[in-house]
Amino acid sequence: MEGEHEEGKTPAAPQAGVAPAVLPDGDPLIETDDLTWENAVEKSKKPVAVMFYSPTCVFCHQMEPYFRSYAGEYRDSVIFVRLNILTSQWTAERYGVKSTPTFKFFCNGKPVQEMVGAIYPAILKKMIDEVLIHGKECAKNSTLIDYDITGYG
Amino acid sequence: MEGEHEEGKTPAAPQAGVAPAVLPDGDPLIETDDLTWENAVEKSKKPVAVMFYSPTCVFCHQMEPYFRSYAGEYRDSVIFVRLNILTSQWTAERYGVKSTPTFKFFCNGKPVQEMVGAIYPAILKKMIDEVLIHGKECAKNSTLIDYDITGYG
Repeated sequence: MEGEHEEGKTPAAPQAGVAPAVLPDGDPLIETDDLTWENAVEKSKKPVAVMFYSPTCVFCHQMEPYFRSYAGEYRDSVIFVRLNILTSQWTAERYGVKSTPTFKFFCNGKPVQEMVGAIYPAILKKMIDEVLIHGKECAKNSTLIDYDITGYG
Repeated sequence: MEGEHEEGKTPAAPQAGVAPAVLPDGDPLIETDDLTWENAVEKSKKPVAVMFYSPTCVFCHQMEPYFRSYAGEYRDSVIFVRLNILTSQWTAERYGVKSTPTFKFFCNGKPVQEMVGAIYPAILKKMIDEVLIHGKECAKNSTLIDYDITGYG
């Protein structure tokens, strides 16, 4: 991973006391793919923040240090994963991801919020906070679609 | 372009030939489906707010009056459409919609933000404002995925 020593990065961290992006006991940002996605995201008991990225996307490189920093900061309450859309296209297409980076938040395995692009890190952070506050409620206040039952109109 | 005189008339339709989506009294909330989706949303020059709903979903009924009200309030700057996921399943699946209501915002035909569930109307409104402020910028600060080129890894 890019990790190692990123003292110059993680500028989004507003206060001191933010955990170093990569802790000795393990990178908090999990790399996932088409095969591991279901267990890492859809079956997770904790809320999950996903970054859909591609290695060639400059905006992804801009956002990655912030995302990684938040992964450290929120490691006790939120799972942070990223997915390379070039090698895991099936999952990206299945979730309607059209551009990178796409940040998508899941509660109880269902998407509850999404933001696209090189956004202000503060907005991304606010979104994580909002999902933590409202997310579970949101997931309850919606009706799951059963595509098998609905069938084609 | 939308041109002419748009007192709420088919602002999303770039060309003629698209079914009149607006009621005679000028309902600003456009009903779309798998067939009209591309013109109404993906080819729209203006930002588009979409509500994916189903007629049987109570949370959708809760949110609909607010969404409709915002459609009136923002009619000059944002196109508001809704899509019934029971009769237009193809579009809903293609955009990874898993629950209703799902609110999705598009700039330059690409999704830039999403929220799911019976959320606080004030949060929905704030999201519309944010898309108006940051949306175009967001759409620029992301890399469009060309699934034809990437192919399967």
